[in-house]
Amino acid sequence: MLRISEEQVEGSLDISTSIDLARDAYRLQATNKILNPSRALLNVPGGASLYCMPAHVLGSKAIAVKIARVAPDNVVSSLPSTLATLYLYDSKTGECVAEIDAEALTAKRTAASTAVATDELAREDSTVLGIFGTGRQAEAHIPALMHVRELTRILVYSRNTKKLAEFASNASKKYHVTVIAAKSSLQVLESSDVLVLATSSSLPLFDGRLVKPGTHVNAVGAALPTTREVDSYLVQHSILFVDSRDQARSTYGDILIPIKEGVIEASHIRGELGDLLIRPRLFSRRKDDISLFKSGGVAALDAVFAEHLAKLSKN
Amino acid sequence: MLRISEEQVEGSLDISTSIDLARDAYRLQATNKILNPSRALLNVPGGASLYCMPAHVLGSKAIAVKIARVAPDNVVSSLPSTLATLYLYDSKTGECVAEIDAEALTAKRTAASTAVATDELAREDSTVLGIFGTGRQAEAHIPALMHVRELTRILVYSRNTKKLAEFASNASKKYHVTVIAAKSSLQVLESSDVLVLATSSSLPLFDGRLVKPGTHVNAVGAALPTTREVDSYLVQHSILFVDSRDQARSTYGDILIPIKEGVIEASHIRGELGDLLIRPRLFSRRKDDISLFKSGGVAALDAVFAEHLAKLSKN
Repeated sequence: MLRISEEQVEGSLDISTSIDLARDAYRLQATNKILNPSRALLNVPGGASLYCMPAHVLGSKAIAVKIARVAPDNVVSSLPSTLATLYLYDSKTGECVAEIDAEALTAKRTAASTAVATDELAREDSTVLGIFGTGRQAEAHIPALMHVRELTRILVYSRNTKKLAEFASNASKKYHVTVIAAKSSLQVLESSDVLVLATSSSLPLFDGRLVKPGTHVNAVGAALPTTREVDSYLVQHSILFVDSRDQARSTYGDILIPIKEGVIEASHIRGELGDLLIRPRLFSRRKDDISLFKSGGVAALDAVFAEHLAKLSKN
Repeated sequence: MLRISEEQVEGSLDISTSIDLARDAYRLQATNKILNPSRALLNVPGGASLYCMPAHVLGSKAIAVKIARVAPDNVVSSLPSTLATLYLYDSKTGECVAEIDAEALTAKRTAASTAVATDELAREDSTVLGIFGTGRQAEAHIPALMHVRELTRILVYSRNTKKLAEFASNASKKYHVTVIAAKSSLQVLESSDVLVLATSSSLPLFDGRLVKPGTHVNAVGAALPTTREVDSYLVQHSILFVDSRDQARSTYGDILIPIKEGVIEASHIRGELGDLLIRPRLFSRRKDDISLFKSGGVAALDAVFAEHLAKLSKN
């Protein structure tokens, strides 16, 4: 059985390839060439949330199953708050053929997914990126978004001022770009053309009325029915795309809560990102539009990334 | 990380313990002391079916996830037709703490579950067991059912006459009981007080009108919406218990097909086995009643068995 470590994943997936793989995955999903059944979700009261995410690209030799565990309490230890393992099984015989450490994979595929959405939805002339969060996901988004827009400046905000200062300093050096530790969420909202929300918050991070016209927002953090990063006002006043309609309607608090409040209907979702890739006319930006891409992570991404890694390892 | 092999599972789980664990699991399920969310099911056209089954006993330190792969085509190779792996994750931090080979575990927990159902539902004076199928599941049911009823004779039937003869000969010696290779399904139905259907068939194994009054039937094979081992007539004329109402209504062809045909309504399900354990008055057998227990396998069983094995291994 093939075993692929975090280090091997880090070394094998460059940004450009990752973005291509993410586009492939969304296109496969939009054209029904991937089996991506509802994932199983188990939420331990006061403990970890566990997601079982199976997917299969029709005609391929593998079934991919990612088991992700989200444990916000891990911030007090040395463990990451998201742990993930990806298993590949032979699609004919069911044998386990590969086990892949999937924390780097998850961060890279999520950032690549956001990059695809940003490339489709954000203004061409976007130069300032605002990031909420200082974790692995937040960092992975920097090189991914630099790949799709000519960013001149990045503002980062977190309530943890120590982590924030470290993050800004390290990221500046690592990615050769100006990264500023913002003093407030307002400072980020006033300056940014593109936002990435990558926190473990369960409550809206800011008042949606403060988001500038013309901004594109990516919300990638919360993924439980009761948690969200954006408020109902922002969702209502945005052009909304999601990674998966089914998941959005069943498990994303960012969408479910405004639906329950009666602020939006499910039909407010303009489409899936995959729909937009195969039918670009679904969205044509007007200058002051605010666009929102809400993603909770689809197994299609994991399957496409895992099969790519398994092929690389065999060659 | 703890690794528990097939051999270790075989050596650690005796029948009596297994039946106690199965009772515990069903009671936990019936009293809402276990989280047992809908499993994720992926069915590769022309290939394997994969089930992701997470469960968590409230208050315990682990989340159990079983990944079972059912590959009927494996009969032509040396691989078993059901492969399974069980992973235990820390319920606080999400770390993977154990990996358990789960083919023996699956066979033993299924047979123990059937034994509990048979103990609750079959006539006390049942002495003849009829088995359809000659696989691992079929065999595991022999010692389990011998534990709950004084069996004097077992009839086995399979269309594969070579496997059938081997199975009868081996099982007779191994379990010190008369095991007869039946010449027809009718011979099994005419003689048996208790039936176990443990095949990979996707179509009803026999005409339900041929089942003797007073028989208890356990159907453990088919678990997909389009596959079944019993016909609509038998379901309609049986007192029906299931391992999980949710799964029965969403994925068991044995139940879904007669519902779609309009032959039964969902309310025909008298209860879950767990309900019966905590409220025995749900069922009181009349002499000629035919009872049917349909199980597709619940993750609650896997979680309880896996935690037991992990504790044994640590001591």
